[in-house]
Amino acid sequence: MKLTLPKTAAVQVIGKSLKLADIDTNGKVFFAKQDIDKEGAETRLQELRQRLNALQELLYAEHSRSVLLVFQAMDTGGKDGAIEKLMTGVNPAGVHVAPFKAPSTKELNHDFLWRIHPHTPGKGHITVFNRSHYEDVLITRVHGLIDEKTWLQRYEDINNFESLLTNNGTVVLKFFLHISKEEQAERLQARLDDPAKHWKFAPSDLKERARWADYQAAYEDALTHCSPAEAPWFVVPADQKWARDLAIAEIVVATLEAMNPQPPKVDFDPKQIVIE
Amino acid sequence: MKLTLPKTAAVQVIGKSLKLADIDTNGKVFFAKQDIDKEGAETRLQELRQRLNALQELLYAEHSRSVLLVFQAMDTGGKDGAIEKLMTGVNPAGVHVAPFKAPSTKELNHDFLWRIHPHTPGKGHITVFNRSHYEDVLITRVHGLIDEKTWLQRYEDINNFESLLTNNGTVVLKFFLHISKEEQAERLQARLDDPAKHWKFAPSDLKERARWADYQAAYEDALTHCSPAEAPWFVVPADQKWARDLAIAEIVVATLEAMNPQPPKVDFDPKQIVIE
Repeated sequence: MKLTLPKTAAVQVIGKSLKLADIDTNGKVFFAKQDIDKEGAETRLQELRQRLNALQELLYAEHSRSVLLVFQAMDTGGKDGAIEKLMTGVNPAGVHVAPFKAPSTKELNHDFLWRIHPHTPGKGHITVFNRSHYEDVLITRVHGLIDEKTWLQRYEDINNFESLLTNNGTVVLKFFLHISKEEQAERLQARLDDPAKHWKFAPSDLKERARWADYQAAYEDALTHCSPAEAPWFVVPADQKWARDLAIAEIVVATLEAMNPQPPKVDFDPKQIVIE
Repeated sequence: MKLTLPKTAAVQVIGKSLKLADIDTNGKVFFAKQDIDKEGAETRLQELRQRLNALQELLYAEHSRSVLLVFQAMDTGGKDGAIEKLMTGVNPAGVHVAPFKAPSTKELNHDFLWRIHPHTPGKGHITVFNRSHYEDVLITRVHGLIDEKTWLQRYEDINNFESLLTNNGTVVLKFFLHISKEEQAERLQARLDDPAKHWKFAPSDLKERARWADYQAAYEDALTHCSPAEAPWFVVPADQKWARDLAIAEIVVATLEAMNPQPPKVDFDPKQIVIE
């Protein structure tokens, strides 16, 4: 499906030589130009969610195509929050959120896509991946568990896998929530300062933070190699939550509008049917 | 868990000799006594959904117990609508809706709970069954696919299965959406009259409608035999959608309030941690 991108603060990744350091994490400049502030963004987001809810119902009725949304980010990048903001207000019967954590011993006995495949959306459904198969070219690479030959092979495996999905009528959109290292420090500190958020913090988060540059490089490579037009990556400015949420919602709703789902025709004549 | 039922139009099934014909399908009398009308019900429902969303987040943080909501009804009884009304507004990341349709050939090669078990909620989650293992003592019985010995055996299997779940920290609530035969006729006709709803109608719906009395008898038996205090059935007046939705939301929220989920304690000292 050819997507005409709406006006958005997110940047679609196209081909080679992506430099995350050159891409805005804030979105302030974009939204100031659009004359949209936090309040305006919230109003617009409400409208988009209502539209998303209506489009989801049509997608479900059509029972032919499906949508897969992939969310990746550094720790505290806002995956949980972005998914919540986008989807709360949409009928959960049509939406499935699949979180992927560290693979189990059993899962490690298989190829890295084996545990992913069962969670891809069925006809009429929207599935959201909170983390995904991309972890297998990110954390594994940064921790030295795989070598370059393996991650290059996996880019190909991923492209082939996503191609299988798109060939079968699944629209795949991938979002990298792009935060600055300074913003991450603030968010980690906020988790430490608020007793209600302590459970969201793990001391090991700081070890991952120390590998910031390695992660950014791994993301740059993965996004560059796995961005066909049929399954694009978007770099979303994520330091400001409202800018992040609005950018994502604009892209998702524009995509569903372009898909233009329609209820199926029925094979009976409603006028001939008598209910006794 | 001992549940103190809130004031509700729904009737909790207790033990023997249930007669559905004796139970109100409307809820008008109850709500008039409570001085609640449609508008008041909508306001209250909004509050309950917000509370449900907050409680779901705590349940997720606690990561210890879970909730299973089972929805059963005659055709057009309002399962889809009730689930949508209850759950739209709750973060889909914490909610999974599992619909059960006619079993596949592979599923029929196993016991009737084999396909159900993988969909039970994990720690911290709320799962909603849209239809369920109860179909195996309802449609199968009405269509003469099983004999009395088998359905009596299955009641025991179901009670044992639900006991396994409740022993493991899952709270199980079951809702039968109770509509009158006249209301079903109106709803089927509405699907025929509105082209946007044609896809929701199947001519075979009328064959099931013709077995109304058999279904009611099968429900009466199933509800009577499978209503331990730990996994209660509620008969919900469902002719009026707002009365139905409010009755369900009151029960679900009261249950989660009684569960009183708490975030876990952490095993580090937040004050000792420095973010570099």
